[in-house]
Amino acid sequence: MVSPKYHVFVCAGTKLSGDKKGLCHSRGSEDLVRAFMTEIDERELSGEVLVSATSCFGICDKGPIAVVYPDGVWYGGLDAEKVAVIAEEHLEGGTPVKSLLI
Amino acid sequence: MVSPKYHVFVCAGTKLSGDKKGLCHSRGSEDLVRAFMTEIDERELSGEVLVSATSCFGICDKGPIAVVYPDGVWYGGLDAEKVAVIAEEHLEGGTPVKSLLI
Repeated sequence: MVSPKYHVFVCAGTKLSGDKKGLCHSRGSEDLVRAFMTEIDERELSGEVLVSATSCFGICDKGPIAVVYPDGVWYGGLDAEKVAVIAEEHLEGGTPVKSLLI
Repeated sequence: MVSPKYHVFVCAGTKLSGDKKGLCHSRGSEDLVRAFMTEIDERELSGEVLVSATSCFGICDKGPIAVVYPDGVWYGGLDAEKVAVIAEEHLEGGTPVKSLLI
């Protein structure tokens, strides 16, 4: 299995212990996963960028959170507009968006 | 936010669209997440290794799946014994386990 150029993990706020949903979830993280997918599709990056939803990262006060690997770059306080900026500058352009780092 | 030395993402087989659970889930992926957490705890690696459960990666025939970043190393067909090997050789020892790669 060849890794994608970028793999975006978006906290969906779920806890392993059950269906409890945390802060990221209440702040619309499911829509953010879809927003990343739409951006990647529209920019024709689906061959090089994967998006996954994840369990709670435990840093809920900074949510909604996403981390981009292999860079290990963490973004917080996300909304659909910020997702578009990350898609343009980082996932397409190759440069992490400093103003959105946590 | 400083990234961990290793971040292990274990497919928990959940689909974003709801609570549908896929193949990895039916093959015990929740137990595998716990197995990784136990190994990391027992090896005192919790300061450097993070474990998260993720949504379905879409390569279910190779499940249960885990990917280790930043290396971008994909493991498949996992069970508790194989998790212990990965913890020892890769997460603690720093060398990916070739025989378990997909």
